[in-house]
Amino acid sequence: MQKLVIWIFLLLTGSQIFGQSKETFNIRAYREKQSHQWLEEFTSFLSIPNIAGDTVNMQKNAAFIQQMMLKRGISNIQLLYPKTPGIPPAVYGEALVAGATKTIIFYAHYDGQPVDSTKWWKGLHPFKPTLLNGSLEQHATIINWPGSAEPINPEWRIYSRSASDDKAGVMSILSAYESMIACGYLRNFNIKFFFEGEEEAGSDHLHEILEKYAPQLQSNLWVICDGPVHQSGKKMVAFGVRGDAHAELTVYGSKRPLHSGHYGNWAPNPAWMLSRLLASMKNDHGKVLIKGFYDDVIPLSEKEKKAVMEIPSPDAQMKNELGFIEQENTDKTLAESLLMPSLNINGMQSANVGKLSSNIIPTTATASLDLRLVPGNDFKKQQEKLVKHVKEQGYFVTDKEPTDAERKRYPKIAKLVLSDGYNAQRTSMDLPIAQNLIAAVKSTTSEQVVLMPSMGGSLPLFVFEKYLNAKTISVPIANHDNNQHAENENIRLQNLWNGMETFAAIMMMK
Amino acid sequence: MQKLVIWIFLLLTGSQIFGQSKETFNIRAYREKQSHQWLEEFTSFLSIPNIAGDTVNMQKNAAFIQQMMLKRGISNIQLLYPKTPGIPPAVYGEALVAGATKTIIFYAHYDGQPVDSTKWWKGLHPFKPTLLNGSLEQHATIINWPGSAEPINPEWRIYSRSASDDKAGVMSILSAYESMIACGYLRNFNIKFFFEGEEEAGSDHLHEILEKYAPQLQSNLWVICDGPVHQSGKKMVAFGVRGDAHAELTVYGSKRPLHSGHYGNWAPNPAWMLSRLLASMKNDHGKVLIKGFYDDVIPLSEKEKKAVMEIPSPDAQMKNELGFIEQENTDKTLAESLLMPSLNINGMQSANVGKLSSNIIPTTATASLDLRLVPGNDFKKQQEKLVKHVKEQGYFVTDKEPTDAERKRYPKIAKLVLSDGYNAQRTSMDLPIAQNLIAAVKSTTSEQVVLMPSMGGSLPLFVFEKYLNAKTISVPIANHDNNQHAENENIRLQNLWNGMETFAAIMMMK
Repeated sequence: MQKLVIWIFLLLTGSQIFGQSKETFNIRAYREKQSHQWLEEFTSFLSIPNIAGDTVNMQKNAAFIQQMMLKRGISNIQLLYPKTPGIPPAVYGEALVAGATKTIIFYAHYDGQPVDSTKWWKGLHPFKPTLLNGSLEQHATIINWPGSAEPINPEWRIYSRSASDDKAGVMSILSAYESMIACGYLRNFNIKFFFEGEEEAGSDHLHEILEKYAPQLQSNLWVICDGPVHQSGKKMVAFGVRGDAHAELTVYGSKRPLHSGHYGNWAPNPAWMLSRLLASMKNDHGKVLIKGFYDDVIPLSEKEKKAVMEIPSPDAQMKNELGFIEQENTDKTLAESLLMPSLNINGMQSANVGKLSSNIIPTTATASLDLRLVPGNDFKKQQEKLVKHVKEQGYFVTDKEPTDAERKRYPKIAKLVLSDGYNAQRTSMDLPIAQNLIAAVKSTTSEQVVLMPSMGGSLPLFVFEKYLNAKTISVPIANHDNNQHAENENIRLQNLWNGMETFAAIMMMK
Repeated sequence: MQKLVIWIFLLLTGSQIFGQSKETFNIRAYREKQSHQWLEEFTSFLSIPNIAGDTVNMQKNAAFIQQMMLKRGISNIQLLYPKTPGIPPAVYGEALVAGATKTIIFYAHYDGQPVDSTKWWKGLHPFKPTLLNGSLEQHATIINWPGSAEPINPEWRIYSRSASDDKAGVMSILSAYESMIACGYLRNFNIKFFFEGEEEAGSDHLHEILEKYAPQLQSNLWVICDGPVHQSGKKMVAFGVRGDAHAELTVYGSKRPLHSGHYGNWAPNPAWMLSRLLASMKNDHGKVLIKGFYDDVIPLSEKEKKAVMEIPSPDAQMKNELGFIEQENTDKTLAESLLMPSLNINGMQSANVGKLSSNIIPTTATASLDLRLVPGNDFKKQQEKLVKHVKEQGYFVTDKEPTDAERKRYPKIAKLVLSDGYNAQRTSMDLPIAQNLIAAVKSTTSEQVVLMPSMGGSLPLFVFEKYLNAKTISVPIANHDNNQHAENENIRLQNLWNGMETFAAIMMMK
């Protein structure tokens, strides 16, 4: 009855209802019919472990995606390998339109972050997808998968590695395509699909694939699906991403662990040394104290500043949800913070704590640092500022374990292993294709669409520009509280459904 | 031939040769005869896991020691249990002398520090005693146990948990007694043996045993065997120990791990908070900055100062061996440092580093701290200074996981879990029995005997004073580079042999 009323309303109002297009309603109806089948397909996909280094399982993932494409009538399905051997391939497919001159390529990645399964909540396992009737934070419980006649509650969540980051992207893009074809809609664009297998490992060989297959990867736009939507739950389009680089910092004390009674107060303690060194890098207000850290940043344009002003502030909501009352950078809102370069400690370790702790003076102390970059920053230059800072604190800096000769020469020794990295990227909001994409996303929702000059997260989008001279726009779909990169990663089903509608609209855009 | 020359020389010179007594030579000869058998007994003993919480294995250890006593003709062998159930017993035995009015009790402990067997050198395991032809630091290799006709090189080392700390004590005390009896020597003292099973777990119930068995534990002196000799390799007598207490400090960020891209710069990072908090506690010259930390310390007497002056300086040798050139407390020598209270980080952890590290903002950061105490310090007062300092850095301090209400009220939250602990203890060097003991130890060696007012390590010696009004003097025997409390713990055989000679001499002292 309710459906009938909506359909009548739709006929009366023409193409829009509550700000949503007729097409969106039809896509939604198809999805409702297919959702049990898709859930089954998605959980099979999530059950295949997907750490980029696990070659055997990565091949299984790639084969699974090829099957998904085949079922949906996608053509020219290929595995695109970089020239370096042993790297997971990108999975490619296409759906060309007779006479179309323009092309959109949809990107997602099928590899996931490393897992520590001991840290997952009881009953959960990274590669055994599990359905919960909400989020763990809301004290949800595990429920059975619904039978084919049982309704699916969109507030349910699937817990699994890559449930959101980023197999949700692969799933929603391919199902959007299936829905659009099933509903019989026409397109203006050729569509291509490109699913990377090495993103969480740093996309070190992506450029080799782009170079090798450049002719078939030409396009007017790459639409990148990765990361979460805005914390307000509103849909989001992002025109840039932060760059990323890492540094692993280790400081040294005695060559062997010492009894803290017999040597405490005398033997240098690397945990104290590391604490002081890290404390010298960032003050109590979240400001990085490394010289020139905020130099090189290109200021926002007026249009970008305006977009930032319109971003709904999730700060109070997020603090409430996350359980703290003071942000790290005490001067800045979340939206502002993400438009600045950052220095973050991902982890820190020296000997053991808790029950494994013993009365010793540790031999080393290590911090894993990540550097996020914004337009204007060069990742190598940013890493060099860090190296210089450590030297200025009196440390001899090496990239190897210190030798006996070095130990006899320098009172303070730090090993700094700098990762490869990449710079930030940003596409102009003013481009006609960007405006058309915004209109397409707006056609799927009655709510505000959040437009961000840059997302906080990082993707190696600069390589698309560098190797293909391509434009990229990011359209993330996951719930913001998805525990991406950590234990208990999850996707809220409504976000998966919304993603399908969004991508279908983009596939049909002007 | 060589032995004959020595014997003739001994006859000519009376009771002393090269500063060593005739008795020492005879004890040594007996030991040389017994050493294969003792090694076999010792390795069987070391093979029994001995973490204080492992009730079943601790019973096996206690039974093994009872057998060792029985074989040596020791009488009145008992297991002394505290009134609290489930605690490993002390193993007790005695060897009374008709007409003797004075008693010495020999103390060692048979439990060991917790183990992380993954950290032990390849081929080694904490409870599979292994023989090496030297130390790992000297690139020694694993060798076969010697056949009964093969000579034993005293530079060989046994690698195993408690090889030095402190089953070596049990072994050398009981074998010293065996040797003395075998050589037919007389004694002035009743001898009692007391081997504790809970020392590494903090000796929380030792006082219950001392109280319950007070009548049979009266003595003129407790001789405590634990810890290493001086780094110079010289024998050592110590008249006191530092006290010890612990604190586990955890600071809090978000309730769940966050993506460092989407929240980096904004979400509070507990690893940075902990770094700053620790950095506020100790400066770059090793001085503890906590208010009043060095107050309450009772200054050394003139005699004690003189003894400290005569301690050979191992600083240069130790730095060379340990691979650093600047001590933590830049103003103080090792001997001086150990006579001051200390604050040490035993371990530090926040999320993961290295390959397990991922792009997150951790939820918590923890440091395990230990506080060493000297005469004048009260351990609770010393812990309270730490609590006060954390509060002064703007932290709300709790001893539990913070509640949601607390998270909404306080910008900085620290959990500080304070352990039980004990104070330092010191016996006067001027007592006649102390002077006699010094003379006895000197009779076993041609080298200097190092006299220390206090050792750096901690033992709960205050309880002997408090519950039995007893005097204690420590006579450690282990090599200084024994990796006590850490992976790759070991004992150098010569140290085991020296220990036997030392204890035999003490058993026969005036």
